[in-house]
This record gives sequence, structure tokens and C-alpha cells, in this order.
Amino acid sequence: MNQMQATSSRRGGREARKALRAAPGGPDHRPVRGGMENPRHFRPLSETDMARIHEAALDVLETVGIGDCLPSTVDYLTRLGCIYRDGRITFPRALVEDYIPRINRDFLLAGRDPRHDMHMQGSRFYCGTAGATVNMVNPRTGAYRGTTLNDLYDCSRLVDTLDNIHFFQRTVVPREIEDFFEMDFNTCYASLAGTQKHVGTSWGGVRQLEASLEVMHLLAGGEKQWRERPFVSMSCCFTVSPLKWAADSCLCLETGAKAGMPIMLVSLGQAGATGPAALAGNVVMILAELLAGMIYVDAVAPGNPVILGFWPFVSDLRTGAMCCGSGEQALLTSACGQMSRYYGLISGIPSGIADSKMPDAQSGYEKAINHVVTANSGANLMYEAGGMVASLMGFSLESLAMDNDSVGAALRTVRGIDVNEDTVSVDVIREVCMGGPGHFLAHGQTMSLMERDYVYPKLGDRMSPSEWAEKGNRTALDRAIDYVDSTLGAHYPEYVPRAIDEQIRAKYPVRLPRERMRPNADWPRNRG
Amino acid sequence: MNQMQATSSRRGGREARKALRAAPGGPDHRPVRGGMENPRHFRPLSETDMARIHEAALDVLETVGIGDCLPSTVDYLTRLGCIYRDGRITFPRALVEDYIPRINRDFLLAGRDPRHDMHMQGSRFYCGTAGATVNMVNPRTGAYRGTTLNDLYDCSRLVDTLDNIHFFQRTVVPREIEDFFEMDFNTCYASLAGTQKHVGTSWGGVRQLEASLEVMHLLAGGEKQWRERPFVSMSCCFTVSPLKWAADSCLCLETGAKAGMPIMLVSLGQAGATGPAALAGNVVMILAELLAGMIYVDAVAPGNPVILGFWPFVSDLRTGAMCCGSGEQALLTSACGQMSRYYGLISGIPSGIADSKMPDAQSGYEKAINHVVTANSGANLMYEAGGMVASLMGFSLESLAMDNDSVGAALRTVRGIDVNEDTVSVDVIREVCMGGPGHFLAHGQTMSLMERDYVYPKLGDRMSPSEWAEKGNRTALDRAIDYVDSTLGAHYPEYVPRAIDEQIRAKYPVRLPRERMRPNADWPRNRG
Repeated sequence: MNQMQATSSRRGGREARKALRAAPGGPDHRPVRGGMENPRHFRPLSETDMARIHEAALDVLETVGIGDCLPSTVDYLTRLGCIYRDGRITFPRALVEDYIPRINRDFLLAGRDPRHDMHMQGSRFYCGTAGATVNMVNPRTGAYRGTTLNDLYDCSRLVDTLDNIHFFQRTVVPREIEDFFEMDFNTCYASLAGTQKHVGTSWGGVRQLEASLEVMHLLAGGEKQWRERPFVSMSCCFTVSPLKWAADSCLCLETGAKAGMPIMLVSLGQAGATGPAALAGNVVMILAELLAGMIYVDAVAPGNPVILGFWPFVSDLRTGAMCCGSGEQALLTSACGQMSRYYGLISGIPSGIADSKMPDAQSGYEKAINHVVTANSGANLMYEAGGMVASLMGFSLESLAMDNDSVGAALRTVRGIDVNEDTVSVDVIREVCMGGPGHFLAHGQTMSLMERDYVYPKLGDRMSPSEWAEKGNRTALDRAIDYVDSTLGAHYPEYVPRAIDEQIRAKYPVRLPRERMRPNADWPRNRG
Repeated sequence: MNQMQATSSRRGGREARKALRAAPGGPDHRPVRGGMENPRHFRPLSETDMARIHEAALDVLETVGIGDCLPSTVDYLTRLGCIYRDGRITFPRALVEDYIPRINRDFLLAGRDPRHDMHMQGSRFYCGTAGATVNMVNPRTGAYRGTTLNDLYDCSRLVDTLDNIHFFQRTVVPREIEDFFEMDFNTCYASLAGTQKHVGTSWGGVRQLEASLEVMHLLAGGEKQWRERPFVSMSCCFTVSPLKWAADSCLCLETGAKAGMPIMLVSLGQAGATGPAALAGNVVMILAELLAGMIYVDAVAPGNPVILGFWPFVSDLRTGAMCCGSGEQALLTSACGQMSRYYGLISGIPSGIADSKMPDAQSGYEKAINHVVTANSGANLMYEAGGMVASLMGFSLESLAMDNDSVGAALRTVRGIDVNEDTVSVDVIREVCMGGPGHFLAHGQTMSLMERDYVYPKLGDRMSPSEWAEKGNRTALDRAIDYVDSTLGAHYPEYVPRAIDEQIRAKYPVRLPRERMRPNADWPRNRG
């Protein structure tokens, strides 16, 4: 009997538990964390299915290829042996097969604080936001209003406080900024101002990308330091599905790759609209685009980190509307996660976009169905993991705060069940049943597992009905609103040092007011 | 090009879709249905893990066994070769191993209407309710009030209308009935009055079980007909975990088995309380109890249908409270689903009990995380699939209505992805991209898959934010309240024919008033 057990039998289980929870525990003892190896419990595709999808994608690349080509794209790819004919670039089968093993699959997505580093390797798994949505939802009334730069900064600060959201990809568009240069530049800046977790964003033009790179170099202490620890990755919609290149994004891809920026190639195939209605066919089309993009990036900057952004979506075929919260969506993203492990390549896959307009029961189940299977499929980065509602048309800070718990439970399923001689517990059962207390409440095993094996929600409520009634019948949404209000009124970390901020503001039109970046008791009342 | 496709290109996709949806389609064309073979996409346990759990359960049965034995239990089991010593029955390893292959794993759980028959065999999968909870939740205020027989009848009628809830197990306890005989008898009667789907319930004493059997024989047209098509199964908590027999339930088990009633053996091990905190150990303990119970039933009535009711629960180890909506719970039930397939035995496993007190975002995600993995684990019957909140302490009709959609999406993931030469869609992609319209909206493949491959929610909303605002910003809960009110005000099927009802009322104290069993426009206003 160790010290803790001895204490427990003297003081009773409840007090012992309190003592244990107060004791220091390293991050390795947490039941879930970013970067866990993913044992891939959910596998809708068989090995034969995956091989068939692989072959079909090669067929598509060889016989259909990708149209709307920039001269530079043609140049990079024909030099490798691709064929340019009738306005389309096609990829000989052998070329694609030769390339796959050469792609970088072991790289760092740095946090500005190394605590938040993401080591992309094998089946390691991390969760973050994403978006580019244009509306914020009022959690009480359901009213939608246009998003602003302030909203983006608030999202970033909120993510900074949420344990199960490991990186911050730009969530909302600052709609008040009309100039594209200023919009992209400020999107990156406001994201970096709110969190030291890894940031993802996108650029619509090379000029603003270059300005943002200058900011990154300043924050890193130089270009060399930035290249060693890239703390921003580019989300790049390099195609317009089905199978056309997107010119402006391709130019950004080239610039970013040369600058050493990790690039998430995003292929958005919406089943029944921009992709085949057959789920397998939608995976094939997206995979074909991503294999092409991956070769393109490697042609521009060999070995540059590349993330295969499988972003399949689903149409409600009655109306053509997107329905990202569906079971079909969950199958698509899981199949994509499996395909990334089929190749051993690093993937970034969205999961958790509700179709519901509000953070309600529908949004809860839509998100969770997707989270738990996508997380268990072998995806490396799960984007859109918090806050997104209305089929990508709305963002809810309160949902983000609640989704952190839902993602935590999904991560617990990824962690799985330890089965070994100790955990099967034959001796424990014998002790308890034969001459023991007849229950496991205060057993040493129970004490030792409570912090190591069990996840406790941040906002999720587990009170009894009577206790809950005494404390005011508060719904999940009530608690989330409180959390958002208290956090955003107080959490103003100084992640852009004053001196660097002044340097940046002297040269570029930073639109986030300096006075917005310190504690602001008025925050909740500023809500739209 | 078939007629539908030709029509489609003339009239445009949207109209063609309407026409297609109006066309008759047999149940085999539905994208999901009860009784689908479950390919078991979610597998947290490896083969080695399962073998280890099996061995540990045999160890427990051989060296710990089960205490608090009735004389009849001792008699049935020692006759087979079990050992009774020091108040416990232990099971020699070889006896258990010999028995497993002899257990019936191919039987019918009948509906009173054969449309609702459940063919228990292999990995066929069905979803239903369960409960025995004691509070109904007011969906607007969150107020809890005691449950009544009327509530039970309403639950049964509501389930009767929900496509993805395939059977009705008793949900709530009629608390106004104090006499145990009357309580059990009326529970069974009110359940049968509201639906023709298969019914499950439990009895606390042999006398009331025998009275209910008489009702079943009357409804079936005789005992022989009842035994051929048993439309009621017994849920039997035959143990008090850890590893003690529950005397009254064992007597009902014996009577039910002799009467040909399918028996779900329920073992409720709550990790960290009545079961080990180690998840693997909790599975071991439950499995040991179920293997013992299964042998017991077979000893009483060889070949009688038996369902292994793995009902693991989780404690919040900080407080000892149950937390059934957790990721730990999802892992436990999935592991149990896998174990039932390891043996090829029929299982009944709970999933979808929220800890949240209300049908809110928390309840949504808690239910869905559990549904989607449990459904994909190889369980045969998923109990508690709708309505349950507050960690088994509350029932919400509105949640039940919404859970039907959440279960539908989970069923879609069970159905999986068809991968074949057609669905990989290389030709479709080629047609669309090379000389085609550049999108898949009106393609023949899209048309043909819209009813076969896509699930459409009953209450789930997929409108755009602007359309949703125009239609009044209604949350999932608003829609669910409407559905419950309109359904329960109108759906009064006559499932107990008048003549039989009179016969039953003449002999037994039926507490559901006859006038409660016809359309009642006042229904919503009767709510507590």
C-alpha cells in the first residue's frame, strides 16, 4: 500500500481524491493530449477499398488531369515528366508512384511557445479550428451579424485557453476590411496576436503573403529562425474542383513553399456538386487533386512540409445545400483519414461543422458524430474542431468553448483502452469480492487511475438533477456564455512584444487597435 | 440515359429530385434500416486484447465466482458441474468454454407487426430505447417532475413514429403506482398499448410476470403463437455487481426462460464503483457475470433466446457520480460490442445517455459520441438510444425525437462506403470534366444515389442562415417540441383490440384509462 492509498483509507475516498488532484502531474500523465499516436480505431475502408481508391486516383490523374494551368505550373510539372495537352496537365502513373515515398512526412509545425509544438510524424494527432466564415451568431437570439477583425482576435484568444484545441487556424473573415492586402495581412497579424499556438491562415495574393512573412521573421528573430521553427502554415485552396488549378492560390503556393512555409493543400470536393455523389468517387477526386498538388509543392521546394488537406463536403441532394454535420460527411472524412495513413502522408481534415444555426442539441450531435470517427480514422490534423455552425456560414464562440469538451471526449476514444495483466484486474476483483468491501470506490487502483485514465470536462455538467436545480438550472449554453465572457474580458496576453509591434505598425496598416490588446472589462457589452 | 436522367436535364435538377423523392421505393432501397449487417468499423480492442479479456473473465469465474446464491441457482448450476463452496458458485474453465458454442445465437425478437421483426443473427444491428428513469424534464424550464404511467404510454406512442428507433424498451417508471404487482403489470401493458414494435421490460416478481404472460398469450392468440413470435423480452438485472446474484430477478429469469421469453441478462458494472476503475477490468467483470448468467438461462431452458446485456457505466472519480456521456463510456460499450462479436453471441448494449439535464448542446454531443462508436462496435441491440438525460435520472420526449436523427446519422456510418468500379467514379469524373458541365449536380449518378445513399433528418435543419432567420430562428428544441406535441396529440393507434382489452381489464387492474387511448387534442396542455 503506497502513501496515497494509506491516506485514502484514513480520510475516505473523496478527500483523498482532492489531494490527488492537487498533486503535481506532468503532461505525460494527462489522459489525453495533442500529439498522441493514433491507433485508428475507426476504419470504414478495407485494405482492398483503399487500393482501389488509390488506383482510381492514378487513373484520374493520368487520363483526366488538371486544367486551367498557369505557365509556371506547366513549367514546374512538365519538367518532372508530366504532360501538358489541350489545356490540361496529366500525370503518368509511374511518376506519381515514384513521388509518393519522397514526400516529407516528418516535420515541425511550431508553436511560438515550444509547449505548443506539433510534431507531424506517423499517426500523431492534433485538433484545431478553421473557418473563413462570415457571420457571428448571437448565442441568445440566434441573430447573425458580419464578422470583424475583433472577432478573429477574440477567437484566437479563446483558443489560447482551451486545452483540447491545439492550434489556431483563422476562423472568421474581417469583413469590415475591403482591401484584400489589408484583409489577409491583418488576418495573420490578429491571429498571431491572440495565441502562441501554431497559426494557420491563407493569402489571396503574393504581395500580402510577403508582408506577412516579414512579420513572421520579425517575431522569430530572423528568417533563419523562422525557417527552423515555422509557426504559421498556409492553407491553400490550390484547385477549383473538379480538377482545375486556382491561379492566385498557385502563385501563393509557389511563394510560400520557397519561403519554407508548411503548406496545407486544400481540396474541397462537395459530393453531388463539385465532386461525385458516390462517396468513394468524391474521395478519389480529392485524392487525385492532392497528389497533384503535393508533387507541385515538392517541385517548387523539394522537401517542403506539405499537409494533404482532404476537405470533402456533402450536399443535401434535395436542395444542393451543404450538410457538413451528416453521417455521410463523417464517412467521407474518415475515409480520407485512412487514405492519408495508407500513404503515410500528413493530413489535415475538417470535422465538426454543424449545420444547425445555433449551439443547440443538433449542433452537439452533428459535431460529435464527425469528431469521434474522424479523430479515430488516422487524420493527423483535425481542422474545424471548434465553433463552426451553419454549414460553414456561422461561428459561435460559445460553441467553440463547448466543443473543447466534445473534442476531449473524442480524444479519449483515440487514446483507447489499456489491456494488460494489471488492467484486466483479476486480482483487484478478487480482493474486492472475497473478504473485501464489495465495491471499488476507495481501491488503490481507482485512486491511481483517476487522473491518468479519465477526462474531466471543462464546461460539461455532471451534477444530479436536484443539485443542478439548486444551482439554477443552467444549460450548457449558459455556462459557455459565462466562460466566453469571463475569458475574453480578462485574457489579453502580450504575444506581440511592444517594440516589434511598433516596427510592424510603422510599415504596415495594422488594423487591430493597440488599446484593444489589453484587459477590457467592457468586453461582453461590446458584443454585436 | 434513363427516363429519370432525361427528365432531369429537361426540367433541371431540383424538380427532378422532387419527382424522384415522390416515387415509391421499397424498404431495401432505404440508405439505413434496422437489421443491417454491421461491418464493425470501430474496434478499440485488438484480437490479443480480446483473448486476454476472455481469459481473465474465465479466471474470475473459476477463482472468484458469484455469491448470494438461491437454492435453485445452486441446483441448476451444480448439476452442470459448477462448484458451490463458501457461499459462492464457481465455474470450471472447461465448462464455460464448452457452453459458449451451444448458446442460441439465431432467434427472433418479434414485433406484433412483422414489419418490426428483429432477426437476431450474426452482427445484425437494431436501436431502441430503455430506461426505468423516474423524472420527466420540462423542455423549456428544465424542471424535473416524477414520471407516470401516462408518460410511459406517451414514450411508447412516440417511438412508434420514429424510423430509427426499432424497438421500445420501457423508458420510465410509473411512480404513482405503489403496488409492485400493479407497477410491473401496467408497465408492460402501457408499453404494448403504444407500439407494435418489439417491447422490452422487466419484472420484480414472478406473480406479475405470470399475469403479463397471460396478456401476451391473449394478444398473440395463444401460448403457442406467443412462443413462436415472442414480442416481449425480459430485461433482467440478475446480478448485483460485483459478482453477486440478485434473488428476485433470478426467480423471474427462471420463470421467463421456461415461458420461452427472450431474456436480456443485464450486468451493470460502474467503473470505479461497482466495477474496477480500469476500463479493461470493468469489461472483464461484466463479461464474467454474463457468461455465468447465460449458462444459467440455458440450464433452465436449453436454447432459450438470451441477449448478453453488457451495461458498463463510468464514475466521475472526483465525486462518484455516474457519467454516461463520457468518452470512457463510449470505449467501454464499444469494447463490449467487440466482445460479443468475439463469441458470436447476441448483445444488448446501452448508448446515448446524456449527463446533461436538458436536451442541449452537451446532451447532443454526449449522446452522439457514444452512438457512433457503440453502433460501429458490433453490438446487436443498442439500448437507451433515445431520450435519456441526467445520467439515467431523467427522460426527455423532445430529446427522443431529436435522437432519432442522431441515431440515423450513426446508422449511416454503420452502413459505410460502397467501393466498387462504379462508385470510384472515374468515368463520371471524366464525363463531367472533359467536355461536361464541370459539376455533378444533375448527373445521373447523383440522381440515382440521392435516396439510396443519403439519409435525411426528420427534425434536423439544413437551411441557410437567412432562410432560417426568415422562418423564425427556431432551434432544434423548438422543432422537437412541435413534433412531440403534434404527434402525441394525434397518434393513438389501437394496438390492444377492444375485446381483448375488456378481457384483460375484467381480470387485472389496468391503470391506463380507456379514454386516454384515443385522440386527445388537450395533450400538450396536460404536460406537467
